[in-house]
Amino acid sequence: MSIPVFVLNGPNLNMLGRREPGIYGTSTLAEIGAQAREAGERLGLSVDFRQSNHEGQLVDWIHEAFEAAKGIVINPGAYTHTSIALHDALRAVALPTIELHLSNVFAREAFRHHSYVSPAATGVICGFGPRGYVLALEAIRPLVAS
Amino acid sequence: MSIPVFVLNGPNLNMLGRREPGIYGTSTLAEIGAQAREAGERLGLSVDFRQSNHEGQLVDWIHEAFEAAKGIVINPGAYTHTSIALHDALRAVALPTIELHLSNVFAREAFRHHSYVSPAATGVICGFGPRGYVLALEAIRPLVAS
Amino acid sequence: MSIPVFVLNGPNLNMLGRREPGIYGTSTLAEIGAQAREAGERLGLSVDFRQSNHEGQLVDWIHEAFEAAKGIVINPGAYTHTSIALHDALRAVALPTIELHLSNVFAREAFRHHSYVSPAATGVICGFGPRGYVLALEAIRPLVAS
Amino acid sequence: MSIPVFVLNGPNLNMLGRREPGIYGTSTLAEIGAQAREAGERLGLSVDFRQSNHEGQLVDWIHEAFEAAKGIVINPGAYTHTSIALHDALRAVALPTIELHLSNVFAREAFRHHSYVSPAATGVICGFGPRGYVLALEAIRPLVAS
Amino acid sequence: MSIPVFVLNGPNLNMLGRREPGIYGTSTLAEIGAQAREAGERLGLSVDFRQSNHEGQLVDWIHEAFEAAKGIVINPGAYTHTSIALHDALRAVALPTIELHLSNVFAREAFRHHSYVSPAATGVICGFGPRGYVLALEAIRPLVAS
Amino acid sequence: MSIPVFVLNGPNLNMLGRREPGIYGTSTLAEIGAQAREAGERLGLSVDFRQSNHEGQLVDWIHEAFEAAKGIVINPGAYTHTSIALHDALRAVALPTIELHLSNVFAREAFRHHSYVSPAATGVICGFGPRGYVLALEAIRPLVAS
Amino acid sequence: MSIPVFVLNGPNLNMLGRREPGIYGTSTLAEIGAQAREAGERLGLSVDFRQSNHEGQLVDWIHEAFEAAKGIVINPGAYTHTSIALHDALRAVALPTIELHLSNVFAREAFRHHSYVSPAATGVICGFGPRGYVLALEAIRPLVAS
Amino acid sequence: MSIPVFVLNGPNLNMLGRREPGIYGTSTLAEIGAQAREAGERLGLSVDFRQSNHEGQLVDWIHEAFEAAKGIVINPGAYTHTSIALHDALRAVALPTIELHLSNVFAREAFRHHSYVSPAATGVICGFGPRGYVLALEAIRPLVAS
Amino acid sequence: MSIPVFVLNGPNLNMLGRREPGIYGTSTLAEIGAQAREAGERLGLSVDFRQSNHEGQLVDWIHEAFEAAKGIVINPGAYTHTSIALHDALRAVALPTIELHLSNVFAREAFRHHSYVSPAATGVICGFGPRGYVLALEAIRPLVAS
Amino acid sequence: MSIPVFVLNGPNLNMLGRREPGIYGTSTLAEIGAQAREAGERLGLSVDFRQSNHEGQLVDWIHEAFEAAKGIVINPGAYTHTSIALHDALRAVALPTIELHLSNVFAREAFRHHSYVSPAATGVICGFGPRGYVLALEAIRPLVAS
Amino acid sequence: MSIPVFVLNGPNLNMLGRREPGIYGTSTLAEIGAQAREAGERLGLSVDFRQSNHEGQLVDWIHEAFEAAKGIVINPGAYTHTSIALHDALRAVALPTIELHLSNVFAREAFRHHSYVSPAATGVICGFGPRGYVLALEAIRPLVAS
Amino acid sequence: MSIPVFVLNGPNLNMLGRREPGIYGTSTLAEIGAQAREAGERLGLSVDFRQSNHEGQLVDWIHEAFEAAKGIVINPGAYTHTSIALHDALRAVALPTIELHLSNVFAREAFRHHSYVSPAATGVICGFGPRGYVLALEAIRPLVAS
Repeated sequence: MSIPVFVLNGPNLNMLGRREPGIYGTSTLAEIGAQAREAGERLGLSVDFRQSNHEGQLVDWIHEAFEAAKGIVINPGAYTHTSIALHDALRAVALPTIELHLSNVFAREAFRHHSYVSPAATGVICGFGPRGYVLALEAIRPLVAS
Repeated sequence: MSIPVFVLNGPNLNMLGRREPGIYGTSTLAEIGAQAREAGERLGLSVDFRQSNHEGQLVDWIHEAFEAAKGIVINPGAYTHTSIALHDALRAVALPTIELHLSNVFAREAFRHHSYVSPAATGVICGFGPRGYVLALEAIRPLVAS
Repeated sequence: MSIPVFVLNGPNLNMLGRREPGIYGTSTLAEIGAQAREAGERLGLSVDFRQSNHEGQLVDWIHEAFEAAKGIVINPGAYTHTSIALHDALRAVALPTIELHLSNVFAREAFRHHSYVSPAATGVICGFGPRGYVLALEAIRPLVAS
Repeated sequence: MSIPVFVLNGPNLNMLGRREPGIYGTSTLAEIGAQAREAGERLGLSVDFRQSNHEGQLVDWIHEAFEAAKGIVINPGAYTHTSIALHDALRAVALPTIELHLSNVFAREAFRHHSYVSPAATGVICGFGPRGYVLALEAIRPLVAS
Repeated sequence: MSIPVFVLNGPNLNMLGRREPGIYGTSTLAEIGAQAREAGERLGLSVDFRQSNHEGQLVDWIHEAFEAAKGIVINPGAYTHTSIALHDALRAVALPTIELHLSNVFAREAFRHHSYVSPAATGVICGFGPRGYVLALEAIRPLVAS
Repeated sequence: MSIPVFVLNGPNLNMLGRREPGIYGTSTLAEIGAQAREAGERLGLSVDFRQSNHEGQLVDWIHEAFEAAKGIVINPGAYTHTSIALHDALRAVALPTIELHLSNVFAREAFRHHSYVSPAATGVICGFGPRGYVLALEAIRPLVAS
Repeated sequence: MSIPVFVLNGPNLNMLGRREPGIYGTSTLAEIGAQAREAGERLGLSVDFRQSNHEGQLVDWIHEAFEAAKGIVINPGAYTHTSIALHDALRAVALPTIELHLSNVFAREAFRHHSYVSPAATGVICGFGPRGYVLALEAIRPLVAS
Repeated sequence: MSIPVFVLNGPNLNMLGRREPGIYGTSTLAEIGAQAREAGERLGLSVDFRQSNHEGQLVDWIHEAFEAAKGIVINPGAYTHTSIALHDALRAVALPTIELHLSNVFAREAFRHHSYVSPAATGVICGFGPRGYVLALEAIRPLVAS
Repeated sequence: MSIPVFVLNGPNLNMLGRREPGIYGTSTLAEIGAQAREAGERLGLSVDFRQSNHEGQLVDWIHEAFEAAKGIVINPGAYTHTSIALHDALRAVALPTIELHLSNVFAREAFRHHSYVSPAATGVICGFGPRGYVLALEAIRPLVAS
Repeated sequence: MSIPVFVLNGPNLNMLGRREPGIYGTSTLAEIGAQAREAGERLGLSVDFRQSNHEGQLVDWIHEAFEAAKGIVINPGAYTHTSIALHDALRAVALPTIELHLSNVFAREAFRHHSYVSPAATGVICGFGPRGYVLALEAIRPLVAS
Repeated sequence: MSIPVFVLNGPNLNMLGRREPGIYGTSTLAEIGAQAREAGERLGLSVDFRQSNHEGQLVDWIHEAFEAAKGIVINPGAYTHTSIALHDALRAVALPTIELHLSNVFAREAFRHHSYVSPAATGVICGFGPRGYVLALEAIRPLVAS
Repeated sequence: MSIPVFVLNGPNLNMLGRREPGIYGTSTLAEIGAQAREAGERLGLSVDFRQSNHEGQLVDWIHEAFEAAKGIVINPGAYTHTSIALHDALRAVALPTIELHLSNVFAREAFRHHSYVSPAATGVICGFGPRGYVLALEAIRPLVAS
């Protein structure tokens, strides 16, 4: 039986593939979600892939994961840099967590260099575009093994 | 007739008692709410006890208090440190307001030492666990006396 | 045919005219919206005037503007100073955008001097009270000309 | 038998009621001390109420409390913000300690926003004027129960 | 009879149209001055349009405006970020004042994000190129009405 | 009848004339006190000249001045830069106060450039050696005139 | 024969007495200059009293003082806080120099707390209004004695 | 034919498995190197696995990679935070580069939160222990495909 | 004849051995004083061993040393980090001075990393517990040789 | 025919040779100008050598160079560190520009370590005294070759 | 049998006695090494005294000490302030370690006030010149006792 | 007989001409070395031209120069910004030293704006590409004249 994992996406990721393909690639979030679910299947993970522009919704989902999942992959988008609420939510549920970014945030504006999420995550993966989701699922696989 | 007071709780406080009892104690938020209502009764306060993980929802409730309450006790959780919107909402309704924290935030990470809510509050109480809610209601009692 | 423009208002602006008229004037947001729609009509702009206290809702509306509008006038309220999500949303839709403030934010508290929205906007107008909405619509007019 | 508690007051608090009643109220420190002793009696606490303008004297008294008291309520006045010696003294005696301020220090000058005492205290109460002493005694009551 | 308004331009604005049209457009300052005077006429404003590379000269003109004008539109160029003297001059004459920038200074180098002029101005308009002068005159019109 | 003025000297000033004459001159504090009393006499001021190395003692004396003097000249020595208690004491008594330094503190180490005393003083005089005391008394004379 | 001293005044001081008497008093600069010349006469000083809004002009005058004066009293106005050129000019001529301010700059905005002039001055006098000019001349008298 | 990739390890990584297994695990660097080579084989990568405590040696090896490899995986150890030389070397050779850390550096001391290497890398992977090397090789695989 | 040396101890050191033996060891200050006197005897030093919680008292004693001692060993406790008065006192008496700490202050909270005493001391010794007193006396021995 | 080059000198350089020969040498600016013109002649450059203490004058001259010269050597004196106006002027005319300092500014006060001129210059030469002018002309020679 | 201790010296210490005797004394490093070996012998320590200008070499030697020594005395020279690699190496081998400096680094440039080595050391000794080596060996003696 | 001068090149300069010709030009370091030697010959200087990626090696060479050369031209590459060891080495040998950079480091990333080498150098030359080496040799020529 496959292990449930939440893959949560933060603000503006719903716009992927619709704008700025030079930076974010041409894949839509729907396509990335399909790839993630497929990779999950191969790894024995049941991927629940969601997106919201609302900080509170992401917090709600992390709480939901406490009961419903064994691990979290989260691309917190802009909330990475501003949300202590996400930090606290991840600390509260204390699940294996991978922080994920499509772009190399450290090569961008200074305000993207600090993450409130990182100290509450198990590990961080960034800079590999949509393929990062597959890497993150591979990375989380042994951490959620029953 | 009892005086209406809002007791508002911010992000992750719904997880109280379910995780990290070492830090936050074993009471659930429901239990704390019951105690607060009971203490309110004793003090002649009608306590409306709410929680949300959404910053915007907390702002909405503060606005609602403008019509519906005489004072606010608020445990803003992580939004304490990041939300100028809460600051502005409290300034706008200009009700007697107690900022409340379960833990002593000043003995924790540096990013919890600054509060945007404090300068818009009447007073601050922190570090007394669930009992802080009762103290806060006692503190607000003479400020909302008609 | 008139050109669609979104006029988006952030947290606490729904309280306009109800509190602190000394700072924010006596107009309600509804009155300002009516004036904006009227000015829009005169300029050949169809003004869709909205307000929310939720950061995520404002991000959603900016995304909606990508399909539904030719330009954005935004008074982000307190989110001006804290929301990288709004910054990213505006960058993503890449529409002509006017950042608007009723008061002269630079003459207020230090934490209101920095804006995450400004670098993602075409221009900034602040300090002119409700009349700023009309100025912003005049400013955006030639930028959204078909 | 009542439980001994020290209530220590730092620099300039002896001037209470003599100057700036607009900020600090009209009660003198003697009156506040009387109220504190009275509240203590009601709570089964024997309140030893003292004031000094000397940082070293306050340190001496905290050491004295190590033998002579079960808990400390301290309004460190200006030494709040500058005295690591008080921090170390409180850490050394390790008694339940309430940090107290008459005014909401977070709504005043920036140099009053940092406290060296807070991380060495159990909890903090501020902004409630002389009534804060009573709240602090209520707050410390269960912490010093034998 | 038209109302006298000073439109003051700071350092390097005399080079407009001669260099870097990509950033500053192709209009010369003379052309912008002509448009401003024309717009002023339409609005019942008598526009006195000047430029100087000398900080002291700009201070002198602001003082002159105290007697000779009802309002000031000022594009302080680089002195925006370095001149407390301009700040003091504007405070001293206390006339309605619009701070104006051709480009969106907030989208440029960090040292252009701070303005000593803004806190002494009524409002700020930036990012609209030469058209900003017309917007500024419209913005100042009701503020200088006799 | 002469007007009582306190001239208070902070830490290490008792060492004047005994060490480092190159910096602080060859006058002892006793000699300076004599000159100050003499100058006071000439100006109709009764000078009470004191020195202490104890911050708390200086606070006590400032409080004493509230009853016993019409003005304060204070050379707070090193406490200038570290004592919020002195700041609060001066604010509390609200007497005309001259902050005085023998040396030009602004030409010395960076940690001597900030003064907690200055914002609570009427004026500041520094850099004139022992003669500064006479200048300070002349400066305070009209401020304490009955 | 009297000793020549330059008394130099920086930007906006020509507006004294014309605006903001609450802050700067009701004396005009001309009146202050007359008082200074009168006080100079009494002290055996020939006072050359000047004002300019131009930083470069003040530098020129300091250079002129190298030949033409024995000492400088300078109220650099806003250039106090921004002009390294004045610092260098004073260092270059190395005359006894008194930095003078009418108001207590340390009780005003933070950007007025730093002075580039102070480390190049002999001493500083501030907070005594127009009377400061007389105090400054008294202070400089023994420093320029032949 | 397999594609050559350099896997470079910085200071103190030779101590892996010998000390602090609680933090860094029990694998020695030799074992990790064997696993990396094995994973490389599986991925069609020829892994050249090296370690040095010398910053200059790491720079030399990066230069060598310019001719001898198609990509670089680098765990720069402590030089991550201090070496602009590594930054410049990676920029100079401009190969696909993965920055790798065994531990989650963002959950450690503040001085480990900044990386000079990140802005010169394609992506970053951290927090997964020895398994991170395999993830990094998987991540680099498509970037070095001929 | 033995050479007089002052060994001065600052705030909270009187609590040594009574609390927190894990950090500060089990020796009381009296025991340490005895050891220091004994070591002094062996080295030909007459050790005057004192402790005070009062900053002003420590300043007084340093002044006393100017006449009565040839060198100073000082463990300034918390005043290390906050007392410019101690800095000035040590500079004023200009005796050979060893700054001493029981614990390695650099491995503790950030606010303990800066010392106002160090730049006024000959040398610094920290981290060796009570034995540090003996090392300090050995270190000062040749510096006070007559 | 020789190529026209402006050599511009900022505030206080007119005092060269008259004061502080220890720092700035014994050459007057007139002598340095003569040497520069002579060196220019040798290099086929027609040197226009000027000095002003006025920031605005230097801006005017840079604008004049846009028409009248092929390159600029500028020793901006104190304006180096404070003038964004010079930065903008140099960017506007976009001529080859050498920033020149007589002394090694980096070995002086911290406020001389930052230059607003450097990012707008082609290169920087400092620390070589009057000889720097000749080096600067040699450096600019190939950059202005027709 | 004597206990092996490494005494490691960092960059530029090989120049001791050859230059700047005013600061560093006239002893060469060879002479200091001889004295250290001699003192070691007296204390039952076998001193292995080395110097390198290479950060990596020092790291290598610390690793070597893990097998070959019981304690480390290290004078890291300039690497004190810049080398996290040394910090990590000392943490990794976890031997008793004394950080040693010839001069009082806290009385020198600000960039010498921070040490990456201190938090990884047992204790710190500085300011005693070559004699510091003997003090450091005495200090380490009981820490390496078998 | 020619005067020996070391020309030392730091990390990554061996890659010159092989990569990023847009920034660093097309000359290889070998070609630049040949030009430098040739220019040296013309100036009567015997140029010893070296490069290393090792900070320690550069320190060694600077020490070697103490005996073997009369002056140093050094392009420290990335070590400019991070190496206090180079600073100390240059201070130790106290030879005339020119700091050289090919590019205008002040027009690049902020972390390249600070140099530890500058305060230990005689002068600085940057922004002139390979020609800078010739300028540096011309600049050093009179400083090393026997």
